[in-house]
Amino acid sequence: MMDFRLQSSAMNFLNEVSSRFPSAVSLASGRPSDRFFDRLNPHALLNAFGVYQRYWAGDRGQVWSQLLQYGRTAGIINELVAQQVRSDEGLPANADRVLITSGCQEALALCLPALCPESSDVLLVCNPTYIGAIGAANAARVPIAALSNSASCVADAIESAVLQLGRNGRRARAIYLIPDFDNPTGRVLDVVARREILEVCAKHRIVVLEDNPYGPFRYEGDAVPPMAVLDEVGSVIYLSTFSKTLSPALRVGAAILPDTIFGDAGACRTLWEDLVQRKSFVTVNTSQISQAIVAGLLIEQRTSLRGWIRPALDWYRANRDLMLCQLDDVFSPLSDQVRWNRPAGGFFLTLDLPFRFDANTADECATHYNVIVMPMSFFALDNSQDCRIRLAFSSVAPEQISTAVRGLGHYVARRVGRQLPRLRDGLAGA
Amino acid sequence: MMDFRLQSSAMNFLNEVSSRFPSAVSLASGRPSDRFFDRLNPHALLNAFGVYQRYWAGDRGQVWSQLLQYGRTAGIINELVAQQVRSDEGLPANADRVLITSGCQEALALCLPALCPESSDVLLVCNPTYIGAIGAANAARVPIAALSNSASCVADAIESAVLQLGRNGRRARAIYLIPDFDNPTGRVLDVVARREILEVCAKHRIVVLEDNPYGPFRYEGDAVPPMAVLDEVGSVIYLSTFSKTLSPALRVGAAILPDTIFGDAGACRTLWEDLVQRKSFVTVNTSQISQAIVAGLLIEQRTSLRGWIRPALDWYRANRDLMLCQLDDVFSPLSDQVRWNRPAGGFFLTLDLPFRFDANTADECATHYNVIVMPMSFFALDNSQDCRIRLAFSSVAPEQISTAVRGLGHYVARRVGRQLPRLRDGLAGA
Repeated sequence: MMDFRLQSSAMNFLNEVSSRFPSAVSLASGRPSDRFFDRLNPHALLNAFGVYQRYWAGDRGQVWSQLLQYGRTAGIINELVAQQVRSDEGLPANADRVLITSGCQEALALCLPALCPESSDVLLVCNPTYIGAIGAANAARVPIAALSNSASCVADAIESAVLQLGRNGRRARAIYLIPDFDNPTGRVLDVVARREILEVCAKHRIVVLEDNPYGPFRYEGDAVPPMAVLDEVGSVIYLSTFSKTLSPALRVGAAILPDTIFGDAGACRTLWEDLVQRKSFVTVNTSQISQAIVAGLLIEQRTSLRGWIRPALDWYRANRDLMLCQLDDVFSPLSDQVRWNRPAGGFFLTLDLPFRFDANTADECATHYNVIVMPMSFFALDNSQDCRIRLAFSSVAPEQISTAVRGLGHYVARRVGRQLPRLRDGLAGA
Repeated sequence: MMDFRLQSSAMNFLNEVSSRFPSAVSLASGRPSDRFFDRLNPHALLNAFGVYQRYWAGDRGQVWSQLLQYGRTAGIINELVAQQVRSDEGLPANADRVLITSGCQEALALCLPALCPESSDVLLVCNPTYIGAIGAANAARVPIAALSNSASCVADAIESAVLQLGRNGRRARAIYLIPDFDNPTGRVLDVVARREILEVCAKHRIVVLEDNPYGPFRYEGDAVPPMAVLDEVGSVIYLSTFSKTLSPALRVGAAILPDTIFGDAGACRTLWEDLVQRKSFVTVNTSQISQAIVAGLLIEQRTSLRGWIRPALDWYRANRDLMLCQLDDVFSPLSDQVRWNRPAGGFFLTLDLPFRFDANTADECATHYNVIVMPMSFFALDNSQDCRIRLAFSSVAPEQISTAVRGLGHYVARRVGRQLPRLRDGLAGA
């Protein structure tokens, strides 16, 4: 059996805790809200099929029944997906270097063993990081090294990880990053940090796996260009997904390769072929029914999803504002002991607490204060995150945010031996 | 880069040869015919959504938008799939042991590393065997051992492989088999062979991965019970797919575990959880849109696909009859040198030739005789299959079978220095 203790605990926690406390409000799940999914009702899907069918038939003289056959391993909607990331993210995406995958997770699962084929090859990750990156690496038996949080910046942490690995005969071959509104922390890497990382990665020939599920969900301020846009040497594989913009049920994502890998077009072609080959032995090809739906929607939206996601964006922004407002309100008496970040986008924020918060703590909080939160330690590779939690505001109903944050406030106050004066006649309590 | 030479050559061959010889008739591709896919036109898919929507809402009080969310890793249509294999295959399938996968290939890709976690663990395969099994094993870095064809039966070949592996400190942990109408050979294992294999596998605790894409397509005679039906000790994982019965574009398959693994219910539970965990790091969950379509069709068909596949079954049977008839006709003057089997089902048959038939030979045959066939060596782990080819009759138009077999006849005749008298005023020729 696989050694998945870390991710296992987090996943089991999420699954179990939600079913054990059905009346508790969950700030644990980082799902997209399904409030806007009715735009993909069966009739809308039929319409998307129709749009794609006309496009496809017109383009290639093909008929619907051929769509239902085995298809091209790398996908059939590559040009439309390339156009969408060009429109929405400014990426210089080349359709010939787009690999359509069964969700972005498959892209990750294919890239890791392809980039790290030797047992001495190591994947660098932030600490904490997305559980699915650790899981995919473990499943592919790719060793992981966590970047130190004590370095002055990510680039320095990479430099020191490379040095340390080198001393043990190992080599960093790839780094997994969510530069925009990181899961789990909500952090954004600024343009300076991105350029520094690109520079150090180019120097050591480390491929950047840039995962960008949350970038489209920026609530204010100017977007920072994706690392794939800043990349000048061919060091970034961009991972794109339709799970947050359209629907997770489609299971359509993509890996978008640069034109060269560190200037070498042949190496990039070889990597591309390796990824396609690997995909053929995992899922054969991505469901062409799902691809047709995505394509139909992209055509209808003129290959930009900015208009499509606007209602969700506004709703997520309001949820974030509400959560920050409630946090300010509830935790002001504890402001010396509790801190949190104020992300300008994404689905998550990080709360720092003056005590350890583990699965048992979360359980206690859910049992007695009716709020489920995610211990940050579930995403961590050491004990540095033991006093932090992740709060997700993406899929909780606005009317529940207040209840949830107040419940959390009461719990934290009790734990630090204080009371929240304005909430004394509170909602929850043991 | 992965060492995929074997499978790579076969896959590239299929892709390239078809595009290089667009006017040649292909007997190379083992796809299902898309002649019956119009039953899954967009309106039929809409209807399937509707059927499932009513079933789902009635069953759980859930709404469509929840279907579009992330879902249960192991799938949401497990009970319907269990019912279908119970109805159609007689399997004692337990819905709690059904893992819905993104095509049957994913089931294989998950099972192999789960069953063979140690570097000394080996997968046994027939020789030749399905390319995707070799590819999935290579991708997961699971070592393969080919069963010898010189043993008197498969069970003896397993016994001697186990012995030989043991001498090198290695251990067979699983065996991949297509007992019904094998790809690539068309061979069927009879009930005696199946029982012997189960016995030797139970003795050595080797898990049987029974892949059964072609079993539903039997054209005459009584079905042999699947090994999962004959299994009495918990040694068979049954791999099921809807790619041949419904459509490959759905990408829905399943791994169906027994209740125990060699009598151990706990071990089976552990294996199940390991597979679910692995799936969460490869594709998260199988597209719920695809699952809804499969479910809707299964409900409409009262969870048996026997009626649904009948038109295709009749058509495949006619194609097989036509091909056998043409082979008899064309190759009768060469009957001392050319032999073939007469499969009672499936998509393929094997032709034995008196000369080596490799990629260059196939190329020559396509160039000058307008027929594309698959060298059996592409599926082989040694040179024992060098003088054989695989002929697929599943996706070729009936009116082209005669042309193709006659073209092949002319080519073979030329290669053995003879002429086909009745075909002298032939079709093809260089």
